[in-house]
Amino acid sequence: MYRNFGFSVVSSSGKSRLGIIETPHGRIKTPAFIFCGTKASVKGIFPQMLRDTNTQIILANTYHLFAYPGAECIKKRGGLHKFTGWNGPMLTDSGGFQIFSLGYGSVADEIKGRRSGIPTLMRVEEQGAIFRSYWDGSVLRLTPEKSVEIQRNLGADFMVAFDECTPYHSDKNYTEQSMERSHRWEKRSLDEFIRGNDFSQALYGIVQGGVHFDLRKRSTEFVGEHPFFATAIGGTLGAAKEQMYEVVEMTMNGLDDKRPVHLLGIGGIVDIFKGVELGVDTFDCVHPTRIARHGGALIKPPYRNSLQCEHINLRRSRYLEDDNPIELDCDCFTCKEFSRAYLHYLLKANELLALSAITVHNIRFMNKLMEEIRIGILNKNLHCVRDKWC
Amino acid sequence: MYRNFGFSVVSSSGKSRLGIIETPHGRIKTPAFIFCGTKASVKGIFPQMLRDTNTQIILANTYHLFAYPGAECIKKRGGLHKFTGWNGPMLTDSGGFQIFSLGYGSVADEIKGRRSGIPTLMRVEEQGAIFRSYWDGSVLRLTPEKSVEIQRNLGADFMVAFDECTPYHSDKNYTEQSMERSHRWEKRSLDEFIRGNDFSQALYGIVQGGVHFDLRKRSTEFVGEHPFFATAIGGTLGAAKEQMYEVVEMTMNGLDDKRPVHLLGIGGIVDIFKGVELGVDTFDCVHPTRIARHGGALIKPPYRNSLQCEHINLRRSRYLEDDNPIELDCDCFTCKEFSRAYLHYLLKANELLALSAITVHNIRFMNKLMEEIRIGILNKNLHCVRDKWC
Repeated sequence: MYRNFGFSVVSSSGKSRLGIIETPHGRIKTPAFIFCGTKASVKGIFPQMLRDTNTQIILANTYHLFAYPGAECIKKRGGLHKFTGWNGPMLTDSGGFQIFSLGYGSVADEIKGRRSGIPTLMRVEEQGAIFRSYWDGSVLRLTPEKSVEIQRNLGADFMVAFDECTPYHSDKNYTEQSMERSHRWEKRSLDEFIRGNDFSQALYGIVQGGVHFDLRKRSTEFVGEHPFFATAIGGTLGAAKEQMYEVVEMTMNGLDDKRPVHLLGIGGIVDIFKGVELGVDTFDCVHPTRIARHGGALIKPPYRNSLQCEHINLRRSRYLEDDNPIELDCDCFTCKEFSRAYLHYLLKANELLALSAITVHNIRFMNKLMEEIRIGILNKNLHCVRDKWC
Repeated sequence: MYRNFGFSVVSSSGKSRLGIIETPHGRIKTPAFIFCGTKASVKGIFPQMLRDTNTQIILANTYHLFAYPGAECIKKRGGLHKFTGWNGPMLTDSGGFQIFSLGYGSVADEIKGRRSGIPTLMRVEEQGAIFRSYWDGSVLRLTPEKSVEIQRNLGADFMVAFDECTPYHSDKNYTEQSMERSHRWEKRSLDEFIRGNDFSQALYGIVQGGVHFDLRKRSTEFVGEHPFFATAIGGTLGAAKEQMYEVVEMTMNGLDDKRPVHLLGIGGIVDIFKGVELGVDTFDCVHPTRIARHGGALIKPPYRNSLQCEHINLRRSRYLEDDNPIELDCDCFTCKEFSRAYLHYLLKANELLALSAITVHNIRFMNKLMEEIRIGILNKNLHCVRDKWC
């Protein structure tokens, strides 16, 4: 069923594991970070820059590409790899997260391309979800079958089963009903995937269940019983960090350890270490690339301005005369060529280059972090790596 | 006086000449095109991309950098080369063009960074010009001495003497008075330059005189009699192309052929061939990089949509399904990786990458044009090169 894909664990240390995911577009060394190319482009970044910063895998969002330019259009152009010029591994999500999170208006500024703050979700039915396009206001319908069809047309290596991203403040009763419907949707996604499987793509199942241990357990069982290639941990993980770690830990305990595990939407450095220590293989988040476009440059602890914040804001006047690069020990293009003072100036002067330059640094930073995490697992000294980065 | 600079003509064909300008930051093979890095950045482009596209020289605008962040700030950062990471030859203009052209409100949208359409020039005196900063509305004063001081602090290889860019619709009487004042200003610029000359920079004189042959003749004589390193042809060149060619031809006839000649603000392909045929060595214009940010991609004749327009507009829906690169024979990054359909999509989706990608193509296009012009002069078949590009 997944003959062109593979996953093997090369080494492990505690629950942390060093692995390799094989795809038709190359190998991914795990733990790995997946960068967001929401609308079929990592904003301001050429594919060559992704390669130069040792990026292994990027994702694109089904919701955005469904609304514009449409999956048929991208299929005609040869699929996402050909269209974007990125020839490495790629993932598309199911569209569920954006429909529901944007739809309920809860993470409204998640996506910059959105034209209004008005919730766009119109109705959730057993069949699927009906919502307004962020692009042109037209009424769109997404079902599990449709999501898989779109993702097949987009042609990424990995696609994700369609689910409902349960609202953050739902009660347990709604969370349970929603989870059960997500399971039915995931089953339909899998059936549709199998019907059209040409072995060029592999399907992720998603675990839901909110912060409720018993629901998470049932959801891990559901996913484990069905032949998904890999597992994504979705839905709300709680309000506080400690709760998140507990929910992830509990969920990890229930998962099949033969499959890669992806933790959706998590990109903080401390959180990544926690996830890796619990056995998570891949992460994604808009955070590193989004903060870059607002002047936020990721940075290691000795040079941070506070314990809590993992980046510095280069718009601040304290960088006006700072001739150092963002990080002295960083080998990225930006740190080799530009000072903080120049980046500060470019931001203030509204020069485009600032956005690409800081994004390049943040991508390289995250890839370097993941490289050192992998070495830490191999050398069984992940705690030393953690001390350096957290 | 210019011991670290040099100019030699290697070969010529008719009045066209193949030359080498030597600077402390490397050699420039001429004819050459100078790209605009108005606010100390070629918009959206890393220095490495400039090198990858064989860019020889860029310029920055004194007016903009004087207003923000100030020349002292850039001096403290080590000058423009260190500040921007561009280590090749660089030129700064005198500030005159922007003060007067923006000031009179005639080429208002020349500069995107400007905050209002209100003319900003307040007064022209014998001493200099008084105007409002486009950046924060503060009152600034620029004199020949101040312009040279600023340009010395900016530290580009080439600086330009301060002049008045005579308004387009001036009568001959005003044009003559303005020219005479510009000559006095240029003399003061030269005196100030000599006072502080540390041999790291060289000074261009400017020829004014509008469309009047007798005035242009007097201006070329003025410039020729003073020890400028090179000559720039400034001011209005007329309303129609034919008049422009006549004014440039007449001006070229009066110039010292031992000095390099720069034609200010000209970047059309046909115009560049005309200029080269009249002996011009270097050109600059915002056109190639500015149209890129609006979706305009430079293109050679067989694929143009009209005889008049030297670029195609990738925003047009005709490119929605066009899987070709901008140009099949272009070796730039963008043409190697992206189709017109993808660039069209990125423009429509307001993705940043479109702007950098088309700019990269246009820069490479202009550099390739100049390369082939140089080969054409060497091989005495510039007309064949012209037939390919015009």
